[in-house]
Amino acid sequence: MQTAQLLVGLDVGGTKTAVLLADANGNALAEATIPTYTATPEALLGTISRAVRTVLAEVRATPRQIRSIGLGVPGLVDPATGIVQLAVNLNLQRYPLGPAVAARFKTPAFLENDVRTAAVGAFAYVQQTEPVQSLAYVSIGTGVAAGVILNGRLHRGHNGMAGEIGHMIVEPGGARCNCGQYGCLETIVAGPAIVRQLIAAAPELQNTVRHAGDVYEAAGQGHAAAQAVVQRVSQHLSRAMQWLVMMYDVEKIVIGGGVTRSGEAFMNPIRHELAQMCQESPLAAALLGEAKLHLMPPEYNPGLWGAVRLAVGGNR
Amino acid sequence: MQTAQLLVGLDVGGTKTAVLLADANGNALAEATIPTYTATPEALLGTISRAVRTVLAEVRATPRQIRSIGLGVPGLVDPATGIVQLAVNLNLQRYPLGPAVAARFKTPAFLENDVRTAAVGAFAYVQQTEPVQSLAYVSIGTGVAAGVILNGRLHRGHNGMAGEIGHMIVEPGGARCNCGQYGCLETIVAGPAIVRQLIAAAPELQNTVRHAGDVYEAAGQGHAAAQAVVQRVSQHLSRAMQWLVMMYDVEKIVIGGGVTRSGEAFMNPIRHELAQMCQESPLAAALLGEAKLHLMPPEYNPGLWGAVRLAVGGNR
Repeated sequence: MQTAQLLVGLDVGGTKTAVLLADANGNALAEATIPTYTATPEALLGTISRAVRTVLAEVRATPRQIRSIGLGVPGLVDPATGIVQLAVNLNLQRYPLGPAVAARFKTPAFLENDVRTAAVGAFAYVQQTEPVQSLAYVSIGTGVAAGVILNGRLHRGHNGMAGEIGHMIVEPGGARCNCGQYGCLETIVAGPAIVRQLIAAAPELQNTVRHAGDVYEAAGQGHAAAQAVVQRVSQHLSRAMQWLVMMYDVEKIVIGGGVTRSGEAFMNPIRHELAQMCQESPLAAALLGEAKLHLMPPEYNPGLWGAVRLAVGGNR
Repeated sequence: MQTAQLLVGLDVGGTKTAVLLADANGNALAEATIPTYTATPEALLGTISRAVRTVLAEVRATPRQIRSIGLGVPGLVDPATGIVQLAVNLNLQRYPLGPAVAARFKTPAFLENDVRTAAVGAFAYVQQTEPVQSLAYVSIGTGVAAGVILNGRLHRGHNGMAGEIGHMIVEPGGARCNCGQYGCLETIVAGPAIVRQLIAAAPELQNTVRHAGDVYEAAGQGHAAAQAVVQRVSQHLSRAMQWLVMMYDVEKIVIGGGVTRSGEAFMNPIRHELAQMCQESPLAAALLGEAKLHLMPPEYNPGLWGAVRLAVGGNR
């Protein structure tokens, strides 16, 4: 490994930063996850440096061997300039994170919104087995958003806000969202919202239910209020899938993110809702059939692999 | 006019066929509307021939002077081959309408779905004053659908179904839609649905209310049930606009179609709903501000001008 052949992908989150080191052929060499420090931009750069050095050390490589770096960042970013316009969880506003990382490692660095980065990774994943040209990657975690690939490329939208399905108003007059609107999809199906709804219905669970996974587990054990929440979440999510397909007519929908870690307990009720739509309607059957929906397997991290693809100019 | 310089645009509807003859610079020379005959493909071809000959006669031109023909067709079409896969209102299934028209006039003929054709026309219209690269054209008439322009080009989707917002399920368990699903947007905001809802609430209007325009007129005159229907329609439509923007992040939304002929009576309640969303939320204000929404003026026919653009290879 004498020439600059190594690719680095980073998923920079508000609490944790994950990093993947790959060779020029896209084989994983090393992976690590470390805490993110966000007090200042310098602290964040320090986190990124530490993450990169950690994986380099694992294969006894030096920064000079890095060919390029890709970064997925939770916020509004400008991929052309590498500027983070706003990333609340990283405490960044109008900060040239791309150029700063590039300067530190003397290597090209490419930036993209984290969900869009994961969509690039999901696209690479699906393409391993199917030659699709379009998909929507739906991330359901602390927030809810979609990254959309059309004609093999990311669709960013005029303001870099395409795919913000978490802020589609689905329940007018519903719960207030962080964005200021009422009844956004995110106020019903995001992880914290799932927990909040169960605790509102069953306050005695306040100290035992912390994560969306706990809600799915309680539902599986027959807890009626938890089952009602899961049903409500599944109905809203299946409808959101139906909308994505009617709007974009993408070939696949891939679902990932923290909430999906409940696996089949998460997917089965959604599949059930979609199957019912398909039974009722030839249009739904044509566009929303069995093969449309993929659950991202937990062992594949689309955010990291997407970042590696960004590093090599994937989907530009 | 000795060389083949004339452009023909056709909007082939289930009951009427409109045609526009333009010169090479895009100036309108003649326009006509005639009844559509759909008993057989031959009858439909006869309608198209008659329409074209009508406008040619007006300027004393011959078919040889036609450079190319563009056609907007209500149904699922394959623009690459000119085949109409399914157009229920034209009584066509897997019919090579593009090649048939091309053969009859010995000139190139280009086919596209009618709402997408109108989106191309709406795009040309907006570009006269603003250099936008994306928009959604929302047609609200007998059906409801959107045509979407991204990066200056039509987005058709994998199955040619992108923008089928009329079949987004917005009221689960609601009225049955022609497509088989329950509670599609179309079952609430399409012209026939608007009439149906008022008559259901006020059966005594059965013989006086025929068109959506009558419902808007009754609402303007203070009829409470009509006002309730208009409010319901406006809420659903403004939410659909919000969804389009969150999904696609387009620069403009242009609204047209028969139902919009009620003009300000149609638009004002929608603007009111959107203004309220913008007041509540900086995100909505950034993406859904005043300048986002355009009502297509009734004197501009986007379907015909879009067809003329198709004729010259626009948006391919």
